[in-house]
Amino acid sequence: MKNAIIQAIVLAAGRSTRFNTDKSKLGYTVCGKPMILFPLELLQRLEIPASLIVGYKAEEIKEVVKVAKIKNINFITQEKQLGTGNAVACSKKDWSKDHILILNGDMPLLDDSIIEELIEKHVSTKATLSFVAAHCLNPYGYGRVIKEINKATIVEEKNCNESQKNITLMNAGIYLVSKEFLKTSIDKLEKNSVSGEIYITDLAEMASNQGLVVQVMQVSYDHVRGVNTLEELWAVEQIKRSNLMKTWMSKGVRFELAQSIHLDIDVEIGSGSFIGTGVHVLNGTKIGKNCTINAFSIIENTTIDDNSQIRSHSVIQDSTIGKDVIVGPFARLRSDVILADKVQIGNFVEVKKSKIKCNTNAAHLSYIGDSELGSEVNIGAGTITANYDSLLKVKNKTVLKDKVKIGSNTVLVAPVTINEGANVAAGSVITKDVPEYSLAIARGRQAIIDDWVNKKLKEKENIHI
Amino acid sequence: MKNAIIQAIVLAAGRSTRFNTDKSKLGYTVCGKPMILFPLELLQRLEIPASLIVGYKAEEIKEVVKVAKIKNINFITQEKQLGTGNAVACSKKDWSKDHILILNGDMPLLDDSIIEELIEKHVSTKATLSFVAAHCLNPYGYGRVIKEINKATIVEEKNCNESQKNITLMNAGIYLVSKEFLKTSIDKLEKNSVSGEIYITDLAEMASNQGLVVQVMQVSYDHVRGVNTLEELWAVEQIKRSNLMKTWMSKGVRFELAQSIHLDIDVEIGSGSFIGTGVHVLNGTKIGKNCTINAFSIIENTTIDDNSQIRSHSVIQDSTIGKDVIVGPFARLRSDVILADKVQIGNFVEVKKSKIKCNTNAAHLSYIGDSELGSEVNIGAGTITANYDSLLKVKNKTVLKDKVKIGSNTVLVAPVTINEGANVAAGSVITKDVPEYSLAIARGRQAIIDDWVNKKLKEKENIHI
Amino acid sequence: MKNAIIQAIVLAAGRSTRFNTDKSKLGYTVCGKPMILFPLELLQRLEIPASLIVGYKAEEIKEVVKVAKIKNINFITQEKQLGTGNAVACSKKDWSKDHILILNGDMPLLDDSIIEELIEKHVSTKATLSFVAAHCLNPYGYGRVIKEINKATIVEEKNCNESQKNITLMNAGIYLVSKEFLKTSIDKLEKNSVSGEIYITDLAEMASNQGLVVQVMQVSYDHVRGVNTLEELWAVEQIKRSNLMKTWMSKGVRFELAQSIHLDIDVEIGSGSFIGTGVHVLNGTKIGKNCTINAFSIIENTTIDDNSQIRSHSVIQDSTIGKDVIVGPFARLRSDVILADKVQIGNFVEVKKSKIKCNTNAAHLSYIGDSELGSEVNIGAGTITANYDSLLKVKNKTVLKDKVKIGSNTVLVAPVTINEGANVAAGSVITKDVPEYSLAIARGRQAIIDDWVNKKLKEKENIHI
Repeated sequence: MKNAIIQAIVLAAGRSTRFNTDKSKLGYTVCGKPMILFPLELLQRLEIPASLIVGYKAEEIKEVVKVAKIKNINFITQEKQLGTGNAVACSKKDWSKDHILILNGDMPLLDDSIIEELIEKHVSTKATLSFVAAHCLNPYGYGRVIKEINKATIVEEKNCNESQKNITLMNAGIYLVSKEFLKTSIDKLEKNSVSGEIYITDLAEMASNQGLVVQVMQVSYDHVRGVNTLEELWAVEQIKRSNLMKTWMSKGVRFELAQSIHLDIDVEIGSGSFIGTGVHVLNGTKIGKNCTINAFSIIENTTIDDNSQIRSHSVIQDSTIGKDVIVGPFARLRSDVILADKVQIGNFVEVKKSKIKCNTNAAHLSYIGDSELGSEVNIGAGTITANYDSLLKVKNKTVLKDKVKIGSNTVLVAPVTINEGANVAAGSVITKDVPEYSLAIARGRQAIIDDWVNKKLKEKENIHI
Repeated sequence: MKNAIIQAIVLAAGRSTRFNTDKSKLGYTVCGKPMILFPLELLQRLEIPASLIVGYKAEEIKEVVKVAKIKNINFITQEKQLGTGNAVACSKKDWSKDHILILNGDMPLLDDSIIEELIEKHVSTKATLSFVAAHCLNPYGYGRVIKEINKATIVEEKNCNESQKNITLMNAGIYLVSKEFLKTSIDKLEKNSVSGEIYITDLAEMASNQGLVVQVMQVSYDHVRGVNTLEELWAVEQIKRSNLMKTWMSKGVRFELAQSIHLDIDVEIGSGSFIGTGVHVLNGTKIGKNCTINAFSIIENTTIDDNSQIRSHSVIQDSTIGKDVIVGPFARLRSDVILADKVQIGNFVEVKKSKIKCNTNAAHLSYIGDSELGSEVNIGAGTITANYDSLLKVKNKTVLKDKVKIGSNTVLVAPVTINEGANVAAGSVITKDVPEYSLAIARGRQAIIDDWVNKKLKEKENIHI
Repeated sequence: MKNAIIQAIVLAAGRSTRFNTDKSKLGYTVCGKPMILFPLELLQRLEIPASLIVGYKAEEIKEVVKVAKIKNINFITQEKQLGTGNAVACSKKDWSKDHILILNGDMPLLDDSIIEELIEKHVSTKATLSFVAAHCLNPYGYGRVIKEINKATIVEEKNCNESQKNITLMNAGIYLVSKEFLKTSIDKLEKNSVSGEIYITDLAEMASNQGLVVQVMQVSYDHVRGVNTLEELWAVEQIKRSNLMKTWMSKGVRFELAQSIHLDIDVEIGSGSFIGTGVHVLNGTKIGKNCTINAFSIIENTTIDDNSQIRSHSVIQDSTIGKDVIVGPFARLRSDVILADKVQIGNFVEVKKSKIKCNTNAAHLSYIGDSELGSEVNIGAGTITANYDSLLKVKNKTVLKDKVKIGSNTVLVAPVTINEGANVAAGSVITKDVPEYSLAIARGRQAIIDDWVNKKLKEKENIHI
C-alpha cells in the first residue's frame, strides 16, 4: 500500500490571532466536530501516522485529540511560533518514512481523495515536492503560486508585489516532500524579510532551482478553504452543512427551510423523516424512519425510534425515545430520560433522569425528575416530583407503578411510591407511599365565605375614607 | 372558448424512486399544498377536464384529490409502470376532445399563462404537436430538445450521447397533441432501447418525420422545474415561498428576516402587519391588519383580527382570536379556542377547547381546557382546570362567569361553575360550585415549627455519627 | 472645517405610497433604528445643521426624531406633496450657508465618507452642483443620469423614453448645490409634464446649460439604495445586518448560522461569545465576554456580564444579569430583573421586577414577581409569588432572605417575608411571615381511602346498568 511510505506532519501551533477570542481556532467546531480532528481523522482513515505540531494553547488541542480517541498521533511542541518552516523542523528526529505529508490543521473541507491523488501523482512522477493549489476569487492572506516552465514557486502574501497580489492561484498548505530533500533543505530555509518567520513555502523554489520535479496539483478551492477568521469558519461550516443536508435529502429526509437547519456530522436520520425549520440535530443523535421533528426543536445525543414525533420548541438531551412517542411542543427532556413506545410528554413538561413505560402521559406543566413511571400512568397538569431535598442536598426517587393516576397540581415528595392503580386527588401533597388501587388525598376541604367580595371592597373603601 | 376543445391527461403513476421515502412524491406539499394539486387546480381554473393516471400509491393520491374536492377528474389506473407512452395510452378510450394536453404531476411552479399561451399557439399555427421546453443550467435527468429546420426531437437522458448531454434545452413534459395524431401514433411508440419503457417523447420525432407542424414553446426554467428528488422539492418550495413573500410585501406586510419565514399558499395577512423571524403561517390562517406575530411562533388554521399581537414562541392551532388580543410568549392555543377582544394569554399557558370573553387574563403557567370564561376574569398563575377524569375517561367542563378572580395554584375540578364575581383563594382545590361574589377557600392553615431547620440538620449529623 | 459652510435639507415629506401600510416608511426600522435617523445622525456626526422637510405623517416623524434626541434639526412642513423641487423651496428662508446639501430620508446605507468626499470634490472643483450616482442592475423607479461632455442631466423614470430606461446609472438623490445658484434657480423649476410635480433633478440640466460646473460622483449602489417598498427595506436591512455580523465576527464573536440571526445596530457583544441560531440581540443590549446565547433566544435592552449562558428559547427584556449566570431554556425575564452572579433560572420560569442575589436557583415552572430573593435561596418547582391582588388591583412584594428553601408548588401570598434560613413545606400557601430557620407548613394531611378505585369503577358500571 502506497500510504505505508508516508508519514504526516499536521501544523497546529499557530496563534489564531485573527479569531480574536483567546482560544485556539482548532478547537472550534464545524458541524459539531472540532476543526483539528478533520485532518487527523482523514490521516487515520488513510492509515498515515501523524506528528501534530502544537504550540499556542497546546493543552486545549491535546485534550480535544484525546477525547476523540484519535490513534497514531505523536505530539511535538514548537516552543516559539517562528513560522511553518520552523514548525516542520521541530519534528525532524521523527522522520522515518520516505515521504513527508505536511498539512495545515485548519482545513475541514479536505477530502480523502485529494490526498490519495496527491500521493499517487507524487509517487508516479517521482516528484521531490508536490503541493496543492486552488484558484480563489479573493486570495487575500494566502501565498500565491507562480507556475513557470520547470518551476513552481510560492510567494507569501506579505512578500507579494502589486502584480503578484492579483494572482488568484493560492497555496493550499498541503505538501508532500521527499524525506531526503526535506532533511537537506529544512535548515537552509531563511528568515522571511518581512515577517522574520521561516516559511516552508520556500521549499518549492529551492527544489525548482535544483532541477528537481515539483508537482502542483490543482483542486477546487472549496475543498481547501483555510479558516483564519470567524467569518471564514462560517463559510466553511455553511459548505459542510449544505453537503450534509444534500446527503440526507438524497436518503429520503425532508428538511423544511433546509438553510435554517443545523446538523452535526455524526448524526443519522431515517428515510421518510421530516426535520422542521431551525431544528438542531446534534452530537450523535439517531432519528428513526418516518419521524417528525418540528420547528425550533433541539435534539442532542439522543436516539429516537421510528414514527415518533417531537413537536416544536422542544429540547431533548441524552435520552432514548421509543416508537410512536409524542413529545412537546415546549417539552424538555433534560438528561437520561428513557421513554418507551407510545409515551406522550406534553407542553411545559420537564423530564430528567427518569424511565417511563408504554402508554403513559404527562401532558401539561409538570416536572418529572428521578422517577420511574409504569405503563398507562396518567400525570395530571401541574404535577411536581419533589425529588430534591434542598436542605439535606440529596435527590430522592419517585416510583409510580402501572395504571397510577395523579390528579392536577399534585406534589409527590420523594422518596415515595404510588402503587399499582392507585389514584391521587388533585392538589394533594403526597409524602407517604400509597397502596394499590386506593385513593390518596391530602388537601384542605372547600369552604365558602358568602358575600366576601363585597365586604372586602367595602373595607377597602372605608380604609380610603 | 378555446379550452372547450381540450382535455388533459395528468401523469401521476411514477414510482418516485429518487425520493427514497416509500411515499409518492405527489403527496408532498409545496407551501402547504400537495404537489399533485397544482396541475389539477390549474386545469380546474382553465375549465379543462382531466384524466389522472395513477399507479404507484394510487390510493394515497386519490385520497389527496378527494380531500381537496377537485372536480372534473377521471382516475385511470396504469397497472404497470411501463413509461409515459404507456401511461397516456391507458386513457385512450376517454379521448373525446380535439386536442389532448399532457402534463406531469410534479410541476408545482407552472403558471396558467403558460398553458393558455401553449393552447393559443397550438391552435393558431394548426400544430399537430406542441410542447414546452426551457434552458436550464443542469439538465441532468431531463430529456433534451433538439431543434432543427422543420423538425424537433426529444432525446431522453438515458439515450443521450456525450454531445447531446451538453444540450441545455430540456423537455418540460408538457405536450398538446391533436387527438387524431395521438390515436394513430400512440400504439406505434416502441420500447426504449435502454430502459425498455415506452416514452411519449418519441411523438415529436414521429410528427416531424411526417412533415406535421411541431411547435416548441420556450419558457423560463423556473416555471417548469420538475421534482424528482427531495433536493428539487426544496428548490421548488424556495421559489414558491419567495414569490408568496414578495406578494405579501407588496401588500404592506413586513417580514423580519423574510428568508426564515414559512407561509402557506392559502393564508392571508393584512397590511401593516409584522411577521417575525421563523414564523410559520399555515393552513388557511387569516391575520388581520396591524397585527404583530413575533419570532418563532407557529399559527395554523386560525383567524386573528386586527391589532392583535402573538408574542414569540407561541403555537396556535384551529382558533379564532379577536381584536387587541395579546398571546404569549410561550403560549399554546391547542384547538377550538375562541378569544374575544382584549383577552390576554401569557407565558407557559395552554388553552384548549375554550371560549374566553373580553378583557379576561390568564398570564402565567396555567392550563385552561374545556372551559367557558366570562369577561374581566382573572386567572392566577399556576391555575389548572382538571378537565379530564382519567379514571372514568371523560372530559368535563369548567364555567367561570364574569369578573371571577382565581387565586394562584388553584385547581378547578370539573364539572364546576364559579359564579359571577366570586373569588377563589390561592392554592385551593375547588370541587363544588361557588356562589356569586363569595370567596371559596380549600387549603390547609399555615403552621410554624420553630427552629425546625436547625433540628433537622442536627438530626442529619447524628445519623451520620 | 469645510462642513461649516454647509447646511442640509433632508426630504421626509413623501407619501410612502408603495409601502401600502398607512404609515410613513421613514419610521420603519433597519436593524432597530428608524430609517429617518440614519441621515440625521450622519449629519450630526459631520456637524452639519439640517432642515427636515416633513409632510405625510409629520407628527409620527417628529416624534421619532424627538425620542432619538437628534440635535440641530429644524422642522419645515411641506403643506402639499408637490415634488422634491417644491419641498426644497419650502426651506428657502432658512438658507444661510454657502452650500446646501440635499438628502433623501430613505437611504440608511449611506456612509459618512461619501458625503465627506462629495463636499471635498464640490469645494475643490468649485462646482455649482454636485450629485451622487450609482450603477444598478434594476434602476426601475430611479431617475437616470446622462453624462455628456460638460453636461450632466437627470431624467425621471416617468419621463424616460425606451432607450433611457435602459440606462443603469441612477440618481441617488444626494445633491450639493451652491446657495446662490439654488436661490436663483429654485423658482424657475417647472412642473413635470407627466406627474405635474416639480422635481429638483431638473437643476442639473439647468446648471449644465448655463455652463456651470456639475460634478457627478459615482459610488457603489449598495451605499445609496433607496427604500420605496417593503421588499427594498428587506434588502437594505439584509446588507446592514450582514455588515454588522461581519464586524462582530472580526471582534471574536461566533455566530451559529449567522444568516438566521438578528442584531440591532446599537448592541455590543464581547469576544469569545457564541450567538446561536435565530437569536435576536436588540435595543442596546450589552453581552460580555465568553457568553453563550443559545438558539431562538431574544435579548432586549439587557446587560449580561461575562461567562453567562442564556439557554435556548429564552426571552429577556430590560434586565441586568451578572457573571456565570445560567438562564433557560424556556425562561422569561420580563422586565426590571436583576440577577447577581451565579444565579440559575430554569425552564418555564418567569421573573418580573425582582432582584435575586448570588447562588440562588429557581429551576422549574415558577413565577417570581415583585420579589427580593437573597443569596443561596432555593425555589422549588411550581412556586408562585401571588404578587397581584386582582380584587383590590394592587401589586405586593415578596421578600425571601438568604438561605430560604421553598418547597414545590408553594404559593407565597404577598406581601410576605420569609426570614433567613426558613423552609416552606411543599404545597403550602404562605400568607403570613415566616420566622428565621423555622418550617412553615400550610397544607392538608394525607389520607388514604382503601380500594377507592375499584369502588369508583363499579359505581360507574352500575350507573350504566
